[in-house]
Amino acid sequence: MHRRRLSFVLLLWMLVTLGGCATLVADPLPSWNEGATKQAIVALVRATTDSTSKDYVPPEQRVATFDMDGTLWVEHPMYTQVVFAIDRVREIARANPALANQEPYKTIASGDRAAMAKLTEEDLFKAVALSGNGLSVDAYFDIVRQWLRTARHPRYNRPYTDLFYAPMIEAMKYLRGAGYKTYIVTGSGQEFVRAFAPGTLGVPPEQTIGTMLKIDYEMIEGKPALIQKAGIVLVDDKGGKPVAINMIIGRRPHAAFGNSNGDQQMLEWTKGGAGARLAMIVLHDDAVREYAYGPAGGQPDSSIGTFSQALYDEAKSSGWFVISMKNDWKRIFAFEP
Amino acid sequence: MHRRRLSFVLLLWMLVTLGGCATLVADPLPSWNEGATKQAIVALVRATTDSTSKDYVPPEQRVATFDMDGTLWVEHPMYTQVVFAIDRVREIARANPALANQEPYKTIASGDRAAMAKLTEEDLFKAVALSGNGLSVDAYFDIVRQWLRTARHPRYNRPYTDLFYAPMIEAMKYLRGAGYKTYIVTGSGQEFVRAFAPGTLGVPPEQTIGTMLKIDYEMIEGKPALIQKAGIVLVDDKGGKPVAINMIIGRRPHAAFGNSNGDQQMLEWTKGGAGARLAMIVLHDDAVREYAYGPAGGQPDSSIGTFSQALYDEAKSSGWFVISMKNDWKRIFAFEP
Repeated sequence: MHRRRLSFVLLLWMLVTLGGCATLVADPLPSWNEGATKQAIVALVRATTDSTSKDYVPPEQRVATFDMDGTLWVEHPMYTQVVFAIDRVREIARANPALANQEPYKTIASGDRAAMAKLTEEDLFKAVALSGNGLSVDAYFDIVRQWLRTARHPRYNRPYTDLFYAPMIEAMKYLRGAGYKTYIVTGSGQEFVRAFAPGTLGVPPEQTIGTMLKIDYEMIEGKPALIQKAGIVLVDDKGGKPVAINMIIGRRPHAAFGNSNGDQQMLEWTKGGAGARLAMIVLHDDAVREYAYGPAGGQPDSSIGTFSQALYDEAKSSGWFVISMKNDWKRIFAFEP
Repeated sequence: MHRRRLSFVLLLWMLVTLGGCATLVADPLPSWNEGATKQAIVALVRATTDSTSKDYVPPEQRVATFDMDGTLWVEHPMYTQVVFAIDRVREIARANPALANQEPYKTIASGDRAAMAKLTEEDLFKAVALSGNGLSVDAYFDIVRQWLRTARHPRYNRPYTDLFYAPMIEAMKYLRGAGYKTYIVTGSGQEFVRAFAPGTLGVPPEQTIGTMLKIDYEMIEGKPALIQKAGIVLVDDKGGKPVAINMIIGRRPHAAFGNSNGDQQMLEWTKGGAGARLAMIVLHDDAVREYAYGPAGGQPDSSIGTFSQALYDEAKSSGWFVISMKNDWKRIFAFEP
């Protein structure tokens, strides 16, 4: 009797300590349709985490990088940070009539859609720079979070943070469960993304890489503060992505996910490493559930999230996986039934 | 009999799983003399890791930052990276006579100590920039590591990596054991330090923050590469330290260690946070075992590792701890008997 009780305690202890294994039975990627794309993610995890595999990667080297706009959440009809910046410029212009008469702020504040469509990338960047200029990082976080609570996407009429892609969130969690650190590597501003990434994506600030705006250390009324300025330290796009990955991580990713020409160099850099490396690129080809743009979509060469035919050809010839939103994703958003 | 064997197995299992606790009994800081400085480190760890403490800090927020030159290793008579750069310039000049006739390279290559003493900080930076210019990050690592194997410190006649301060290495390990991430935050080049920090200090590349030289993404013979250039992206010194900490970590440290005017802002920024925060500054006041410079030393206002009287006064009035190498450190180097 005593023997059986002790055996039982021992068995229970073993079960508790080994309990994590039970979750392996459930499908970690339920929003993905079965197929080569889903299998490639599972295969990378198996190859790099099985200590008997020739492609085994020690936990500290397990790095996966994710572009944000168009890869983790909706980027059409306009990048979320630009929508935020336009709203901010309007608010600043109301309080500052002198600024309201300067271009491009005048056009932005007008709300004239035809005029706004003619704004250049430089104009939009000026709006982004103005949106945080002179604010401490903490004050800026508060403004971004407040905006995210009230702003709604024009098509889905939902908060922007409802518009993360469920299959990608699953892929992030699956990789984290396998010991990977998941990083965001985005052309959007680093502080903009840090305002919501910890709470919504489970990505901590030290794993959020973005375009780095100039920040100055200043003493404000005897207290140290980090104040945002209008300049740029590093544009985290195209060749800037591997450079920023090196700066913040100092390791080459084993998996990278993108969706546009801005991600090309990150994917090349990832695939250029030895051993098992996974490069995936999201193709927006589902006008019914989301949008269709890019080489196989209904709106080729969209200026928002450009995915050129040349990049598509490179993906196909370089062993990258093109994720078809239409065919690979069972559901796109968590709010779908 | 069976019962006792099972009890024994159970006990053994418990001992193995709880074994880590036994190490708490040993002094984690044996190279520190007893006193207020040592106690302050222990007190921070207790206050921030005891879940019942009002100053409890969740593990993911436990960040400690360490300046390198003069804080983790010897910086006199010259910063290690500058010694490396001077050796590199001489090597490059031998292979490139045109360069050998340009200043400041000509003076550097001459080995004329009197002329070299007159070189400006800008001249020395030019040498640092040249030392990595055009090299891939990996090729540069190889050159730094090769140099570290053969170069010797002029006073100790030992490799530079023998000259880490044993008490600081203990503090780093003690903090890591308490769930802290330990970061290097140095004015030296980020890639220079990454060449040896993982192997010698146990600090991984993603926790190495330094001055960021310009790096470009390039395709070299069809393979992607990160190539160092002579420009600067961010100088990780003075106000640049809190800015770089924000860029790479996005969290305010709970403990920061420095030794010079270049660390002032990092220490201010650390102490400016809520809850328990520790700021420590190493005073080089031990000419017998190491060097004496700074406000209480024999060589005030040294241009290498400047520690001004004003900073000393700020430390004393702001609740920072001044670490006296002479009085607080039982031994300075691991090679001491």
